[in-house]
Amino acid sequence: MSNTIGKLFRVTTFGESHGEAVGGIIDGCPAGITIDEDFVQNELNQRKPGQSKITTARNESDKVHFLSGIFDGKTIGTPLAFVVFNENQHSADYENIRDIFRPSHADYTYQMKYGIRDYRGGGRSSARETLSRVVAGAIAKLILREKNIEIQAYTSQIGNIKLNGTYKDYNLSNTESNIVRCPDAELAKQMENLILDVKKDGDTIGGVVSCVVKNVPIGLGEPVFGKLHAKLADAMLSINAAKGFDYGLGFDFAEKRGSEVNDVFFNDNGTIRTRSNNSGGVQGGISNGEDIYFRVAFKPVATLLKDQKTVNIKGEEVTFKTEGRHDPCVVPRAVPIVESMAAIVILDAVLQKNATI
Amino acid sequence: MSNTIGKLFRVTTFGESHGEAVGGIIDGCPAGITIDEDFVQNELNQRKPGQSKITTARNESDKVHFLSGIFDGKTIGTPLAFVVFNENQHSADYENIRDIFRPSHADYTYQMKYGIRDYRGGGRSSARETLSRVVAGAIAKLILREKNIEIQAYTSQIGNIKLNGTYKDYNLSNTESNIVRCPDAELAKQMENLILDVKKDGDTIGGVVSCVVKNVPIGLGEPVFGKLHAKLADAMLSINAAKGFDYGLGFDFAEKRGSEVNDVFFNDNGTIRTRSNNSGGVQGGISNGEDIYFRVAFKPVATLLKDQKTVNIKGEEVTFKTEGRHDPCVVPRAVPIVESMAAIVILDAVLQKNATI
Amino acid sequence: MSNTIGKLFRVTTFGESHGEAVGGIIDGCPAGITIDEDFVQNELNQRKPGQSKITTARNESDKVHFLSGIFDGKTIGTPLAFVVFNENQHSADYENIRDIFRPSHADYTYQMKYGIRDYRGGGRSSARETLSRVVAGAIAKLILREKNIEIQAYTSQIGNIKLNGTYKDYNLSNTESNIVRCPDAELAKQMENLILDVKKDGDTIGGVVSCVVKNVPIGLGEPVFGKLHAKLADAMLSINAAKGFDYGLGFDFAEKRGSEVNDVFFNDNGTIRTRSNNSGGVQGGISNGEDIYFRVAFKPVATLLKDQKTVNIKGEEVTFKTEGRHDPCVVPRAVPIVESMAAIVILDAVLQKNATI
Amino acid sequence: MSNTIGKLFRVTTFGESHGEAVGGIIDGCPAGITIDEDFVQNELNQRKPGQSKITTARNESDKVHFLSGIFDGKTIGTPLAFVVFNENQHSADYENIRDIFRPSHADYTYQMKYGIRDYRGGGRSSARETLSRVVAGAIAKLILREKNIEIQAYTSQIGNIKLNGTYKDYNLSNTESNIVRCPDAELAKQMENLILDVKKDGDTIGGVVSCVVKNVPIGLGEPVFGKLHAKLADAMLSINAAKGFDYGLGFDFAEKRGSEVNDVFFNDNGTIRTRSNNSGGVQGGISNGEDIYFRVAFKPVATLLKDQKTVNIKGEEVTFKTEGRHDPCVVPRAVPIVESMAAIVILDAVLQKNATI
Repeated sequence: MSNTIGKLFRVTTFGESHGEAVGGIIDGCPAGITIDEDFVQNELNQRKPGQSKITTARNESDKVHFLSGIFDGKTIGTPLAFVVFNENQHSADYENIRDIFRPSHADYTYQMKYGIRDYRGGGRSSARETLSRVVAGAIAKLILREKNIEIQAYTSQIGNIKLNGTYKDYNLSNTESNIVRCPDAELAKQMENLILDVKKDGDTIGGVVSCVVKNVPIGLGEPVFGKLHAKLADAMLSINAAKGFDYGLGFDFAEKRGSEVNDVFFNDNGTIRTRSNNSGGVQGGISNGEDIYFRVAFKPVATLLKDQKTVNIKGEEVTFKTEGRHDPCVVPRAVPIVESMAAIVILDAVLQKNATI
Repeated sequence: MSNTIGKLFRVTTFGESHGEAVGGIIDGCPAGITIDEDFVQNELNQRKPGQSKITTARNESDKVHFLSGIFDGKTIGTPLAFVVFNENQHSADYENIRDIFRPSHADYTYQMKYGIRDYRGGGRSSARETLSRVVAGAIAKLILREKNIEIQAYTSQIGNIKLNGTYKDYNLSNTESNIVRCPDAELAKQMENLILDVKKDGDTIGGVVSCVVKNVPIGLGEPVFGKLHAKLADAMLSINAAKGFDYGLGFDFAEKRGSEVNDVFFNDNGTIRTRSNNSGGVQGGISNGEDIYFRVAFKPVATLLKDQKTVNIKGEEVTFKTEGRHDPCVVPRAVPIVESMAAIVILDAVLQKNATI
Repeated sequence: MSNTIGKLFRVTTFGESHGEAVGGIIDGCPAGITIDEDFVQNELNQRKPGQSKITTARNESDKVHFLSGIFDGKTIGTPLAFVVFNENQHSADYENIRDIFRPSHADYTYQMKYGIRDYRGGGRSSARETLSRVVAGAIAKLILREKNIEIQAYTSQIGNIKLNGTYKDYNLSNTESNIVRCPDAELAKQMENLILDVKKDGDTIGGVVSCVVKNVPIGLGEPVFGKLHAKLADAMLSINAAKGFDYGLGFDFAEKRGSEVNDVFFNDNGTIRTRSNNSGGVQGGISNGEDIYFRVAFKPVATLLKDQKTVNIKGEEVTFKTEGRHDPCVVPRAVPIVESMAAIVILDAVLQKNATI
Repeated sequence: MSNTIGKLFRVTTFGESHGEAVGGIIDGCPAGITIDEDFVQNELNQRKPGQSKITTARNESDKVHFLSGIFDGKTIGTPLAFVVFNENQHSADYENIRDIFRPSHADYTYQMKYGIRDYRGGGRSSARETLSRVVAGAIAKLILREKNIEIQAYTSQIGNIKLNGTYKDYNLSNTESNIVRCPDAELAKQMENLILDVKKDGDTIGGVVSCVVKNVPIGLGEPVFGKLHAKLADAMLSINAAKGFDYGLGFDFAEKRGSEVNDVFFNDNGTIRTRSNNSGGVQGGISNGEDIYFRVAFKPVATLLKDQKTVNIKGEEVTFKTEGRHDPCVVPRAVPIVESMAAIVILDAVLQKNATI
């Protein structure tokens, strides 16, 4: 009962990492939207494993097939089902962890909750599930583009290397120019080196993805329990390894006085705007037309390519070493996932805003 | 469509700050629970305005009346409706801001979304709405207590004064021993002084509330879009002035290596536990039985008792000064609200866990 | 978790028959709607007990109080809470049935499901709960009127006395001209006499309410699991004592050939319409702009004013006789309830239809 | 937003009749259930076209493929995705109705709602969609069997040929012994002949499916807006061509007196039961442990193999004749669909009942 997100634009995903396929159903998609399947595939390719030396070597074509909801290239108001078949599973790599609970993984909690689990590649808890979100996010982006709404995420921190200032201090169109997805070329290089160092040690490293949404209509979000930023937080923290979310000044607000950070309204040639945007584009849970920006913190990947202690299903303490292919840092590949979840949330909010007489 | 939270334990709130009443309906409450109305009222009193020199002087009895769902002192499986009548409104204080959009308030976004708003005391966007959450949270706490689940929040930062270490370094039973609700008496005094300083300036200050949930059953939370921490984030960020959420090491994970922070399982006399708990009690979205702990960042209250610039509904730039009674810092009164939202989320997760054959 | 209906226009009700009050919260109500409270009260008066010699003698003012969501006479997009205090309870009348399961009542199922129940006046299972639906329905009607959508229900059968033909054969504006709410004055008189006869025997009688919705926009309803008629059925069968629902030709379709009943499209001066309307205004689950009409069957009231056998909570077989005040036939008072539920469903469908880009 | 049914056991379907595939996702399926894929396929075969001389000649293998959620033959608590590829489409048959609105079909309402439609074979409005429900229903049946709950539907009326008495008067295990799925062999033969007669005329005929659920636990269903029979009605009326629903005595209650039909409780060797079961196993919306029985009325199939008048998309009146392969009567193939929807609703109610502390 937990594999669906959204109220009106509803995305349901399925699939285990080493099962037959992953995919999903998008329900509530407006009709008459032209679906550019190349765009969708390209979005998916940004999430793909094996795309660079700092990502896992698992190599799959990750080709998306749509099974319904599109006719003559356009959506028709019916559900879009899509599927990506799993190809390059090395399930044998996981035989030795079949009965082991890997530290900081979902092995133990799944086993305890369900009494059974697909141990191969993490099963349903694998980040491979996020593939379905990128497909749904790509569809949402295509629709939001018709409203001129743009979403851009980027790597803002890896380990102790972090961007200074805000998104306004960087040219975000540089984000895709390096494999770390950081808009600052120099810091990107440092981040890349850090990830390679960590990888060499069989270790992993955490980081932060930042995201900005531009040209947001005023009035998205609901006042009390459907606040726009709360829905963004819910969506972002559903991403594997995400551990924190804040928006606008976020945790930095804790040290501030109201007089320092209040966003003063002014009349910008007939448009009411705010001089600063510490609020991050959302006030009282509702978008005010300024840029929405937020951060998502990610922990280091739990899978280490070195000996670790743990217990097995019998409760015996054991030492194990992971085989398999894993990312030393989830952050670069999380960038398109953050964008996708943002697109899903924003589109859902647009539809809800329009649901009136 | 946004005033309900929860899937099985469902709380719907209503009411404007200067309307006739605030209150709510709790649906899905298990039957046969003894309702200690004194406990509920006491919880409410912790949120009450006017409780100390660092809170707003608005003075109300905030007496809760239950209208349904309780028979012979016990719940009967039907909805619990409750109401708290508003008493001490000084609506005249708000006449001068009737047509003004206060900076960093919800005035502008409500007006733009709905084309109309109750400007008195912030209307629905007032933190007075959270009163209903504390009532619902108190009911949830009574039920969770039968399962031995305990929730404790506390002030961990005001401005630049913050607790070091984790919740384990403090005796949380001291939390209610000072008006700041900080378990460290000395830091509490500093925080209190900071708030009084800020108040003297007509200014406000931000802060952080931390919370820990103990004796959590294993298996709460759903794997993909109903992750326990994501539901906590959604709930916490629905609180007025909340701007950030993280759990376990949270944003500090960004700087860490996997080998530093992985939580190693061990056999603790027959119980599988983790040696560290950097995960914050949730792995793969599902509770693992360790303590759940998280932080919520709050911005400084937007209402300043000093001149501010803004625009009015006609788009004219104006200077105004707020009358009315306001908190210089939302954090101490947010402590019981954070606990309440945690109780609502955890109870809902308990019910969902049990929804099987 | 079962006291809310609707997806975007959401109505949650509360209250037991002999508790302090009944009422509800309407969430998702569009903003800027002028609320004519006299109209709402008048709708409520049509449901009121004690309105005629064929209804229960329970006599209450049933005065509705709105607690939120209305400012300067208009809705403001926030939840409308309302309450009707219970006044004329004769709870002592129910002492003798405290431990008894009345035949064909909800006493037994509530007791078994919840392990506890409020036995006074049926508690939550009392038709007094429908009062809240009439308030919500009245609000929905006010909004639908702005779209020119009209809803008219009427009594079409009491016992074996039934209207011939369809709603088109009667002047429905006569419905309120008699206490049975039947548009045919002569049959109304027969129905009234039948009810009085039955009442004299301490017995009760069943019947049918029919309803028609006019000026329905094309495109209401969702294709697969949100079919407009399915949502109407769900809503109608939530009314106490309702046992059946059909629309258009309904059960009479079973005997028909396709060639007899297909609704042929034609061009009516530029508007596409159907020559017949056996479909009842809904095709494929979606309104086609023709009148929607449907029937709801009601069983005879289970409470008889004569000796009945049953068992008590110990399983002992006993004979009892109901005191209290009860309707000999639920149908006349069900007419405004059917209209109200229809209004709630139709308005919710209008909002959903508009939820697009 | 309308392709999902259920609250805890949630079924989402996708697919157009002449698209690539139909299928769905089952979320909320309990873990550890052994999935007998042969049973599922066999259930599906009962719905299959081309199974007898009274069904459409469309001939497909309708082989179901599960893509996720099953590991080592058992459910693991993750979503079960399944797909059935479309094979035997004769899309060319539909070229001539591309721009035509077939009478009593969904062509017109889909076109008006979405501005676009897949005209081939009815697209999403085709009864081929129900295939996905039968798969989900088969899974639900497997789970309910572990609780000993049995569901049996059968044809009780075709045209003016109908069974007398109730389900207790027939041996329902005979249902599958004839192609009409009627437990009375003689009436089955008459029904079959009627259908063949109608078919010879290029015409179609309506009917009724009845259904009984045995060994139902007490306490299924929610009191107000989640009444068990209302959820059954919602589910049944989501089936293509369904036009009416009643349960227990249903519409026949309208003519009855309370004293004739009240179900008197008695002590049946320690079990509280009712002497009659006119209520149909549900009282106050909650199951009382007696058999649940209900009826679903179906209209004659709208597609006739003879000339019909209508209008085209330009509003021009035209005469057309359907090619394609169609059932002369939907009822026999609706029998497994009614059972499937019943299984989905009952299982969802079982899970909800258990969702307590």
